[in-house]
Amino acid sequence: MNVMVMGIDGYLGWTLSMYLSGRGHDVSGVDNFSRRRNVKEIGSQSATPIRSMKDRLDAYEEATGRRLRFYEGDLTHPDFTDLVIEKEKPDCVVHLGEIPSAPYSMIDIQHCNYTQINNIVGTNNILFAIKKHAPDCHLLKLGTMGEYGTPNVDIPEGSFEVEYRGRKDRLMFPRQPGSFYHLSKVHDTYNIVFACRVWGLRSTDIMQGVVHGVVTDDMVNDDLLTRFDFDEAFGTALNRFCAQAVIGQELTPYGKGGQTRGYIALRDSMQCLTIAMEKPPSEGKYRVFNQFDETYSVNELAEHVVKVAGEFGVEAKIWNIENPRVEAEEHYYNPDREKLPALGFRPTKSLDDELRLTIPRLMKYRSRIEAMKESILPRIRWKG
Amino acid sequence: MNVMVMGIDGYLGWTLSMYLSGRGHDVSGVDNFSRRRNVKEIGSQSATPIRSMKDRLDAYEEATGRRLRFYEGDLTHPDFTDLVIEKEKPDCVVHLGEIPSAPYSMIDIQHCNYTQINNIVGTNNILFAIKKHAPDCHLLKLGTMGEYGTPNVDIPEGSFEVEYRGRKDRLMFPRQPGSFYHLSKVHDTYNIVFACRVWGLRSTDIMQGVVHGVVTDDMVNDDLLTRFDFDEAFGTALNRFCAQAVIGQELTPYGKGGQTRGYIALRDSMQCLTIAMEKPPSEGKYRVFNQFDETYSVNELAEHVVKVAGEFGVEAKIWNIENPRVEAEEHYYNPDREKLPALGFRPTKSLDDELRLTIPRLMKYRSRIEAMKESILPRIRWKG
Repeated sequence: MNVMVMGIDGYLGWTLSMYLSGRGHDVSGVDNFSRRRNVKEIGSQSATPIRSMKDRLDAYEEATGRRLRFYEGDLTHPDFTDLVIEKEKPDCVVHLGEIPSAPYSMIDIQHCNYTQINNIVGTNNILFAIKKHAPDCHLLKLGTMGEYGTPNVDIPEGSFEVEYRGRKDRLMFPRQPGSFYHLSKVHDTYNIVFACRVWGLRSTDIMQGVVHGVVTDDMVNDDLLTRFDFDEAFGTALNRFCAQAVIGQELTPYGKGGQTRGYIALRDSMQCLTIAMEKPPSEGKYRVFNQFDETYSVNELAEHVVKVAGEFGVEAKIWNIENPRVEAEEHYYNPDREKLPALGFRPTKSLDDELRLTIPRLMKYRSRIEAMKESILPRIRWKG
Repeated sequence: MNVMVMGIDGYLGWTLSMYLSGRGHDVSGVDNFSRRRNVKEIGSQSATPIRSMKDRLDAYEEATGRRLRFYEGDLTHPDFTDLVIEKEKPDCVVHLGEIPSAPYSMIDIQHCNYTQINNIVGTNNILFAIKKHAPDCHLLKLGTMGEYGTPNVDIPEGSFEVEYRGRKDRLMFPRQPGSFYHLSKVHDTYNIVFACRVWGLRSTDIMQGVVHGVVTDDMVNDDLLTRFDFDEAFGTALNRFCAQAVIGQELTPYGKGGQTRGYIALRDSMQCLTIAMEKPPSEGKYRVFNQFDETYSVNELAEHVVKVAGEFGVEAKIWNIENPRVEAEEHYYNPDREKLPALGFRPTKSLDDELRLTIPRLMKYRSRIEAMKESILPRIRWKG
């Protein structure tokens, strides 16, 4: 299958491109390197020493004999996006090319607008280019479980049957996003639903949980590593806890720590995206997959990190700090996850399994984390 | 009350500014004149011969002794928006400063992105500026009944009680917008809900039906007229039918003509916005008003225009043409409208009442419509 990975330089994009190429797919990718710039702006760096795109591509070819095709450019430029999709006419566009940070979007009005414009306009440009040049192409789009927020009812996969005053309809499940970043993903969702309905495009919108882990089997040498962020903006709570454990800083859950989310190991995320890609929806169909394996509270995450770090001789402590976000710290959480298992998804790594791979690997890069440790504790506050 | 009207040069903005000033409010306004440019781009003009902003302000001062304060600038520039809100520190911002056309947003990717960026970024900039300089300010924001689409169940005002698998929550009613423009209004809605929840701002989000009519009591001479668009992009179906009747063109409902929407007379829209403004929500409260008076199908609109035009000696015919949009042409439609009547809204003009004022007024400007009659029939198609 001809697959184009938007955001090929990112955490998921680089990992997925190697994974798909290994399965025999014909992979091209696009990136503008904004993630490298944005993490630098926050005053941090990837814990893993990632190579330049050119070096990555060369190293991958050397290791496997396969070359990934790369296009440098910005998806918010409609002419560029049109051009690469016209050239490749992909069977599937995997759109991972968005700014993924809630705190980053909350810094100020400039970062709010930058995040929303980048994400919305990039997706719109892809939709128009697919319509024009590859109308059968499957848009596999990365959303987030955070689109739903934490309602006091179960969370279905995308839509639900509404019975209201004696009449019925199947409608989108209401979204309650918790940052300007999460809002941008909801805006994307609405735009994509519309494009599928009106233009007959096909799309899978992945409501993904938090992905964890840093190595997959494709990373046969250090030149092929993917990035691992641990700063307050681009590092997830779990990544920050791992980094804190490694450098001997207390692990800092925000507030009461009862915030519960879905989690999935990096290699299992790859498995899910591949299933979605290889079993595309029919023409005009928009579908939503809730993509996660287990659910944990933030306190539970911290406890798992303490336990596994201990197995490697690292003693870690937990210190619940004031929450810089505005969010429910204790809440009901019961999202569905039926569709991917029904298509064959079988999780291979639990949180502890993956932590046993992540923590020793991060210990190799302790000095890189140590050098940027000021970027871990929160300075960005939801209330400004 | 110190009121700032965003989009003061527009159809509603100009009319509302005079109306509020007449009620003793202290009115300022902002515009970048994009509406004048965009209508020109479509190859049309306002049927009414509207004056430049400078002439309008002078004419209004001459007629009433009151000067409206005007700031020319673009709400998508955060520094400009910040500056005017800092200077005025308004009690209420009435945000009418958005691109309001579904067909315009469907022309191509450039018009899609322009509409969405203009509307989303403008609203974001206002939210951040209010938070910084006037946190008690009430944001009275113009949405559209079109955010809801045409679900097969009743449409509540904004949110509804969900009972799902035995648990309950009050959630936003799902939206089904029908164009990239309507999508931009849904995106705004989500961003505003978030700002109210996280920052404690207060906002009224007006889901307004189609406004009709061209004159109010404040327009004591022709220099004070508001605009009236009749082109395919910025003219509503009703405006186009009135213009077509006046120049002897068949009235052209799209498709079967069963598309049903809410309608409200211009002066009654002013009454509603004033009620919402003078009875603001409490701190941190986001509320939604469905703002319309009557519901009609497009065929019914055409029949009303034929009838009233006949009263003025104008013979009009109806010709249902192919629908350039993708939309349900026959559907259930039963939106609530409880909140504004409960606050004292009493409609003063039915559709026929208002048409009896609009049609003879347009007959005065027949030559201006005639000159731009090529702009009425649809060339913009939803499927591109």
